[in-house]
Order: sequence, then structure tokens, then C-alpha cells
Amino acid sequence: MSEKLKVVQFGLGPIGMASARLALQKPGMEVVGAIDIAEHLVGRDLGEVLGLSESLGIEVSPDASAVLEHTRPDVVLHTTSSFLSRVEDQLMTCIRAGANVVSSTEELFYPYYRDPEFCDRIDKAAKEHGVIVVGTGVNPGFSMDVLPLTLTGICADVKKVRALRVVDASHRRGPLQRKIGAGLEKAEFEKLVSENKLGHIGLLESLLAIADGLNWHPETIDEKVEPVLAQKAIKTQFVEVQPGQVAGIRHTCVASINDTPVIELELQMYVGAGDPNDSVFIDGDPPINMRIDGGIFGDTATVAALINTAGRLQGQAPGLKTMLDLPVPRAFL
Amino acid sequence: MSEKLKVVQFGLGPIGMASARLALQKPGMEVVGAIDIAEHLVGRDLGEVLGLSESLGIEVSPDASAVLEHTRPDVVLHTTSSFLSRVEDQLMTCIRAGANVVSSTEELFYPYYRDPEFCDRIDKAAKEHGVIVVGTGVNPGFSMDVLPLTLTGICADVKKVRALRVVDASHRRGPLQRKIGAGLEKAEFEKLVSENKLGHIGLLESLLAIADGLNWHPETIDEKVEPVLAQKAIKTQFVEVQPGQVAGIRHTCVASINDTPVIELELQMYVGAGDPNDSVFIDGDPPINMRIDGGIFGDTATVAALINTAGRLQGQAPGLKTMLDLPVPRAFL
Repeated sequence: MSEKLKVVQFGLGPIGMASARLALQKPGMEVVGAIDIAEHLVGRDLGEVLGLSESLGIEVSPDASAVLEHTRPDVVLHTTSSFLSRVEDQLMTCIRAGANVVSSTEELFYPYYRDPEFCDRIDKAAKEHGVIVVGTGVNPGFSMDVLPLTLTGICADVKKVRALRVVDASHRRGPLQRKIGAGLEKAEFEKLVSENKLGHIGLLESLLAIADGLNWHPETIDEKVEPVLAQKAIKTQFVEVQPGQVAGIRHTCVASINDTPVIELELQMYVGAGDPNDSVFIDGDPPINMRIDGGIFGDTATVAALINTAGRLQGQAPGLKTMLDLPVPRAFL
Repeated sequence: MSEKLKVVQFGLGPIGMASARLALQKPGMEVVGAIDIAEHLVGRDLGEVLGLSESLGIEVSPDASAVLEHTRPDVVLHTTSSFLSRVEDQLMTCIRAGANVVSSTEELFYPYYRDPEFCDRIDKAAKEHGVIVVGTGVNPGFSMDVLPLTLTGICADVKKVRALRVVDASHRRGPLQRKIGAGLEKAEFEKLVSENKLGHIGLLESLLAIADGLNWHPETIDEKVEPVLAQKAIKTQFVEVQPGQVAGIRHTCVASINDTPVIELELQMYVGAGDPNDSVFIDGDPPINMRIDGGIFGDTATVAALINTAGRLQGQAPGLKTMLDLPVPRAFL
């Protein structure tokens, strides 16, 4: 890698724009290209798209291959979709261009269970081209997987890992408020849940990563998405919620061995959540009772995770990786 | 490495004995040898030394080379001394025998500042023989370095890292209670501090590891060891402390850049500490306010860190490493 890390931003939704902005602020990074297929972005200067006062001389292009061929980045910051099925071609294009990929694709944080063949293809191609592909973020990617697992690192024995994340969605971006069903009636919520159209993406991935890290083989995994109903009226920048309407989700994922729960993840994400926090309880020796007061603010943290992970790939062996394979996380300043 | 990790216990003080006991409990480990020079241990069976009901067929030997040559372990669990100057020959013996070393030597957690030549020699030898040498533990090794640094992994910016560890030494082993001066008069305490005979070993190492991880270059580092005086009489299994006598230490280490503190570590370790905890405050974006209620129980955690780190070396590149170079910590179950 060159002394300054050359990065290309692939995807310019809200997370991608924030990622590009943060990369531009890092003295150790140089943004050399931007990729998006949205008609209202293509052909415009990245500086203008990001709302900066100056143009950057970087034109947003829909042609990933051409941008990568032309700019030869060290790392692609990839922020296009939550789902493996939608990103394989994009990842392959980056890999073939010899660029490492750090992606916010939630399913990529721990893809081995959902699609082992996808993993084989990506891993093989990445090794062939000497690059790393890794999925990261705050959730999945940190608060309900990397952090709990890290805390077991000083445990002589572990019987159960429980992680709780309570997010007040009032201060989060609009798409997220809609993704958790804020403002829906309970029946609409349940219909959408049954169609897999609501809920947090990546909770199962967090659970599987913890199980893998501890070499546990869960016999059953129970996943549930329930509505949290508003007690009083709440109005955010994006939605209005009446009492009795859905304020957001309570999403749980529990892994059991011998009918005993060994991993319990609970994500509460709703507008008006009173006591946001990230907590980890380890029933182990020693026991661990950790709490991050106020919780980790997700939009900033996800973008930071992308940039910080991009800064930590140097010297690592190529292939499809997870955050658990990489050295201890740290800020890239 | 073989399917079961073959380990030799090097050093049979309180930590070494606990380490050997834990290794014996791990289905994935096989204890194949034990080294100590203490006359009252040499020649005895390890099972007897550990107070187990059965003999293990492992004789404690003072001859490290012979034990390692004979048993060919994957990893040596090394627990003999806190100081680099006292362990170099021991580490070299392990390296030459082709064994990885996981050590509780506090100064080895981040040895680059204290003795760069030592580091060069160890790193060169380790690479020559294809093994890893790493220092670990809970403090240094986790609560005031690895954990705070991990938490910066989701920060877009970091202005200051502060870690506080408050330990109630009443429940810790006797040597530790004496190491913090419990039961001394204030004047005796201060005399011993001035002779470098009291205080926690490794706080500076924790601070330097955080600075290195964040690519910060502190201009000044202030280290202070002060007594915490007992408010009321306290009696533990090992010492009696009268009101006004020393109950333990308050050890601080502060790194500054441009006269601004950027890393602040504070360790309070005294008998009768009322509210033990491990806390991390990150002045960053987002800010992080983390607390482990009750704190991490040190004696168990240090031993667990040794075993868990030993379980995580496979596939890593050889050389002198720190915990920051290795993948995310996790329990070896």
C-alpha cells in the first residue's frame, strides 16, 4: 500500500456519503474515486454531492470497473446493500481490480452460515488477487459480537453470553426509522414481519460470530421480531407515532445447547427509548457485567468502523475475513 | 500444532499454579511438562504440587532446555517474573526449542519502549525459529489497554482516552497485598516508592500500547504512585491495616501532547475499596462511557488471559507480538 491509503467510495447512500466525508477528513487517506448508479448522482462532482464548498475533481461514476482500473485504490469502502445476494458482482469487480474491500453489508459480517458457496467463491478470488474482503459496522460488527467476544478473552470459563442494545431511534436517520416500523399499526407491523420486510439485519450474524468465536455449536436458534408500542405520542423529524402505534422493534436471537440458552441477543430499537445503552453480561469465571451508558451512536459508529477497519488491513493475509480474524479494533486517526 | 495444544508450565508461583490448573481443565490442552527452580518443588509430581488428588506423571524440573527438548510443546505458559531483564534467557530457551511463549511478564506486554534491543533480539530469534512470543494478562493486557483501544474502534475521532480501574485488594493474593503496601506507615510507603519497590508494574506499558495503537506520540508522560490511606481498620487473610496506615496505591500515568492530556490511566488498588470497577471514558465521536460493575477479578482473569491467548496463536505470523497484533480476544473453552 502507498503511504496514504487510496480509497474509493462504492455506494453513496446516507452511510456511503458519511463514509466518504470521514475518509476525506483523515490525513492518512486519499479519496480517489466514487461509484454509484443513481441517476441524480452520476456525472456530478463528489464534493458537490457531499455538500462540500469545493469540488474534488472526482466525478461520480456508475462504472465500477472503469473507476477501479483508473484509480487503483488500496481499499474500497463498500456501502450499497445489506444482502449477500445483491453484492457478489460488486465485490468480485473490486477483487479483480486488486482492491481490498471493507463493506457495510450486514450479511457479510458473518456470511459462512447464510451462503457457504458465496464465501468459497469470494475467498478463492480474494486469495487469487491478494486482497482482503471484510464486513464491518457497529451492529453487526461491534456492539453485539466483537465487544462481547472480546470480554470473554479474560474468562476462564463461559456459560452464557448475553448482549442487550437499546437504541433511541428518534435521533437516527429516516430510513432506519421506517425499517423498524415506527408509526405503523400493530397489524401492519406483523404483516410486514411475516413477509421479512421489517427488522434489523445482522442479529443472526452477530450470534453466529460469537458461537464460532467460542467454538460453540448451537442446536437451536430462535429469532423473534416483536413490536414495541408507543405509550405516548412521539414526533421525530421523519415520523409521527400515536399512542398504541408501533414505536419500533424488539428483536431477539437466542442460541441453545441442550435446551439451555448460551447466547442471548436482544436489540430494542424504537423512537422514544428512554435509557439507551449497550450492555454485555457474561455468566462466566470471572463474571462480567458491562454497560455503555447512552449506548453507541450507530450512524457515526458504523462509518467509523468502515474507516478504522480500512486502516488496519496492512500486513494481514488475503481472503474473506471477519472482524474476528483481524487484530484488535482501534481508531484510525 | 497438534490437535490438542501441548503446553509446558514455566514457573510455579501462585499465577503459574493457577495457569497449570486451568490448562489441565481444558479439553483442548494437554499439559506435558512443568519447570521451576524452587527447591521445594523440584522433583515432585505436578499433580501433588497443585494439590490434586492424583499424580500426573509430570515431574517438576529446574532444567528448562531438557523439559522442552523432551516434550516439544506447542506453547509455553511462562509465569516467572515481571521484568524483561530477568526473563530473556528463559524466553530464548523456549524460542530455541521451537515453542511459542505466552507470558505474564508485565513488562513484556509492551516492551518496545523499555528495551528496544531486547525486542530486536527476541523478535529475530522468534522469527528464525518460527514461533510467537507475547505478553498478556488482565492488567497490563486487557482492562487498561486492549479494552479501551477496542472501544475506539467505532470512533470517528478520539481526543482523549481515560481508563480507571478500582480493585478491592482484600480478596486478592497475599503477594499482591504486600506489593501495594497495605499495612505500611505513609513514610515507609513513600520511601519504598522512591526506591521503586512499590507500585503496579505495567501501567506505563498499558499507556504506551494505547498511544501506539492510536499512532499518538506523547510529548510528556507523568507517572505517580501515591498511598491510599485507610479510613478505618481492615483485616484481610494476609494483613492488618489500622486507620491512617496505607491501604494500597493510587497509581496514575498521564500522556500529554501540546500540554493536553490525551491518555489518562488511573489504578486504585487497596484493601477495602468500596466500589470496584473497570471504566473507560472516550472523549471522541461518538463518546464512549463504559463501566464494568464490580470490576474484572484479576487473579482469575490473568490466568484466563494466558490460556485464551495460547489458544489463539495458530496461523499467526511468527515474531515478538503484542496483544494488539493478535486477533480479537476470546475465551478458549
